[in-house]
Amino acid sequence: MSKEITSRSEDYSQWYNDLIIKSGLADYSAVRGCMVIKPYGFALWENMRDVLDKMFKDTGHQNAYFPLFVPKSLFEKEEENAEGFAKECAVVTHYRLKADPEKKGALIVDPESRLEEELIVRPTSEAIIWNTYKTWIQSYRDLPLLINQWANVVRWEMRTRLFLRTAEFLWQEGHTAHATANEAITETRQMLDVYADFAENYMAMPVIKGVKSPNERFAGAIDTYSIEALMQDGKALQAGTSHFLGQNFAKAFDVKFSDKENKLDYVWATSWGVSTRLIGALVMAHSDDDGLVLPPKLAPLQVVIVPIFKGDEQKKIIDEKVTALIKELKQAGIRVKYDDSDNARPGWKFAEYELKGVPVRIGIGARDIQNNAVEVARRDTKEKKSYAMEGLTQSIANLLNDIQQNIYNKAEAFRKEHITRADSWEEFVQLLDEKTGFISAHWDGTGETEDKIKELTKATIRCIPLNSQQEEGKDILTGQPSSRRVLYARAY
Amino acid sequence: MSKEITSRSEDYSQWYNDLIIKSGLADYSAVRGCMVIKPYGFALWENMRDVLDKMFKDTGHQNAYFPLFVPKSLFEKEEENAEGFAKECAVVTHYRLKADPEKKGALIVDPESRLEEELIVRPTSEAIIWNTYKTWIQSYRDLPLLINQWANVVRWEMRTRLFLRTAEFLWQEGHTAHATANEAITETRQMLDVYADFAENYMAMPVIKGVKSPNERFAGAIDTYSIEALMQDGKALQAGTSHFLGQNFAKAFDVKFSDKENKLDYVWATSWGVSTRLIGALVMAHSDDDGLVLPPKLAPLQVVIVPIFKGDEQKKIIDEKVTALIKELKQAGIRVKYDDSDNARPGWKFAEYELKGVPVRIGIGARDIQNNAVEVARRDTKEKKSYAMEGLTQSIANLLNDIQQNIYNKAEAFRKEHITRADSWEEFVQLLDEKTGFISAHWDGTGETEDKIKELTKATIRCIPLNSQQEEGKDILTGQPSSRRVLYARAY
Repeated sequence: MSKEITSRSEDYSQWYNDLIIKSGLADYSAVRGCMVIKPYGFALWENMRDVLDKMFKDTGHQNAYFPLFVPKSLFEKEEENAEGFAKECAVVTHYRLKADPEKKGALIVDPESRLEEELIVRPTSEAIIWNTYKTWIQSYRDLPLLINQWANVVRWEMRTRLFLRTAEFLWQEGHTAHATANEAITETRQMLDVYADFAENYMAMPVIKGVKSPNERFAGAIDTYSIEALMQDGKALQAGTSHFLGQNFAKAFDVKFSDKENKLDYVWATSWGVSTRLIGALVMAHSDDDGLVLPPKLAPLQVVIVPIFKGDEQKKIIDEKVTALIKELKQAGIRVKYDDSDNARPGWKFAEYELKGVPVRIGIGARDIQNNAVEVARRDTKEKKSYAMEGLTQSIANLLNDIQQNIYNKAEAFRKEHITRADSWEEFVQLLDEKTGFISAHWDGTGETEDKIKELTKATIRCIPLNSQQEEGKDILTGQPSSRRVLYARAY
Repeated sequence: MSKEITSRSEDYSQWYNDLIIKSGLADYSAVRGCMVIKPYGFALWENMRDVLDKMFKDTGHQNAYFPLFVPKSLFEKEEENAEGFAKECAVVTHYRLKADPEKKGALIVDPESRLEEELIVRPTSEAIIWNTYKTWIQSYRDLPLLINQWANVVRWEMRTRLFLRTAEFLWQEGHTAHATANEAITETRQMLDVYADFAENYMAMPVIKGVKSPNERFAGAIDTYSIEALMQDGKALQAGTSHFLGQNFAKAFDVKFSDKENKLDYVWATSWGVSTRLIGALVMAHSDDDGLVLPPKLAPLQVVIVPIFKGDEQKKIIDEKVTALIKELKQAGIRVKYDDSDNARPGWKFAEYELKGVPVRIGIGARDIQNNAVEVARRDTKEKKSYAMEGLTQSIANLLNDIQQNIYNKAEAFRKEHITRADSWEEFVQLLDEKTGFISAHWDGTGETEDKIKELTKATIRCIPLNSQQEEGKDILTGQPSSRRVLYARAY
């Protein structure tokens, strides 16, 4: 039967790792903290990327590509940003290898190839991009500049986990320049909305939009907005961020524009990004002990058809039916595969596609054909049902929509169940430990309190929700006055 | 008027640089040898990538992603390959920066963050990929393994040129594993055909398929095949390569499979790649002194519509017509833009779109509307003609096909004119200097002769064409017997 996966209740973290590896999404690599994204995982990423890319283009953005390396002197120009990333930078210092005189066939770094200036492998591209924008922006006519980049970045994290936190990851980073603060803020919020739309309507993952506390802000930003999702173990996951950078980078890189009255001013900036981390979020939000549960809109394969037969004659009749069916499904834009490989029994295949999270499985045998029907199993509920051959393509299309909606509803119900108000410290700690999820509590607005709470409980402020209401109260720890609740959680 | 471009006759190399910069394809960057691919250049790359990606998938390949870094101990395992790339490797030696104690706000590499083992920024990914394949391949059932990766790579070249040779570039690299030598050779040749198909039918650039001489082989390959194109200055450009790697990498990384009889053998390999260099080839193959000439199938923008009007009333009437036209063109899958921006006169816009190589320009004025016609200018021939409004979408679609074909025909005629036989050394040198292009000449098959000819003339053997005929003759330099002509050229 299928490959064994640790159950969620036994060890959630091990369940996650098992799932990633055994479903074929990714693999460990020979490089510390770096992973290999396997074809199945990459196909999922391509689907996510394509949807996002269209959303970015529909909101007026263009793609471009900037260098992988950032010269140290540029990197350090925006001090807050540099300081924020300095501790996790891969640094290129040499540009040549040579034969090791002491060991045949081995190579050593040629000490004579030391670079005059070290190059940082980009952990994020504000520095290299704003250094370029300086030459692209002179006048208000050059604004807004709306650019996105799909790229790999490197952050030398000490503790890594497949997809969730890897030394190298793939992402997109938007970097925009505007004539006014207001325009930049509107852009920041617009891209947050794009991310929320993507998370909810494609990943089937409800998210909370909010603004980060200063402690959790992107280094170099005036304000960081994020979408926060909830995983099945009750921990939160930051799934995307959108930053209003003010004029920080424009000042650091001296990017000014002349307005219509010929007055010079620094440009206003935003940046925003999501990464392959979203795959980790997707897996943890929906999957179960039997494998992945993928939302149909992003699943690399939406439908798999498995023949059940004895002998060549039955196979031939089934093949004929399936060929026609596949043609119809493909015409309807459904991603479908016919698995008639003879190296595994149907039961093994069923388990394998469950593991891989294919939303719909169609079993078709000789008797089904006599009955003009097929057996359809949906991955999310594991329900099996006989479907008439007549109108099957439309039925399957409807079923895929149902599954997409059902996965979302389930995640939303879980999240609703896991946003809890706490009004005393004891309650707060108990909820965190026993119920988990988001805790809505009053905060006195200071970084010290946030630090203290993190130290005591490992919970952090995930965000101040955009839809939060003014409400008088007292800080959950200090008792100081507060005018608003924030969301705490333990987080990935 | 338009930005000034050096003419080809004046200085071909400067013409190329001017064109790349002024048409907005790319820009220099702050990192030595690295460029910024600007939105217009990246849109072109996206179109190329999407077509190629579909071709790869249609031939059974899947995308995946492998780490950017290669640990030195893996990098050196396949000795020929390692030796071939050792001299141009960016090397990561440290993973942290820290505050410079001697200069406020500055950062230095933290000497305590030295890596135990240096990491090579991939110049190509055979090593990291074959080290992974070792764990993926056990049995003939795991073969063939047909994987492609879209990625950035770094080769620390001493002399760089925008797109043609940059320290970092974007490319795709296919890496396949097979049970037999024959299968691997078939794959190598298949991908060469895919590249030739792409070059000729999308880039409108005729290419010669051939096999490389041992001197020009990929480091670690048994055979390297390439497609060779001819630029307008008579220099050749290698536009894509496909390598039969034999069992070299399987042996270096110990990748064995058990066949149906349970016998163990090393796996057979191929790798193949094209890069952003193709953009340089595209530019140099077709463009002229007024700007880019882009083949419609790849042009980011196929049609631009420019209104010519006096006063709001005329503009309103034009807008109405254009709105309907654009809708129709888009429905026909044509990439079109209406440039009614008021910050430039039509003449300036015409020059700008000529510079950018937009294949078709439609001018539309009040009188055109009265005549139920528009003025259509094609970029390749600069011909202008009045087209009836009726059936305009179909006329434009036909025109785009014509342009695609015409660009190809022109390049093919040029190339035909520039493949010349030489049967004496004097003739060879004279042709190289005066006529340029490919010289078809006999070669005695030795690396020494090739080296000598390169030293004397800067010409190299571009390839031994696949369609070359057996023919007795004498080496052009040494007079030694030869059984086949090869193609020499000076090359990019």
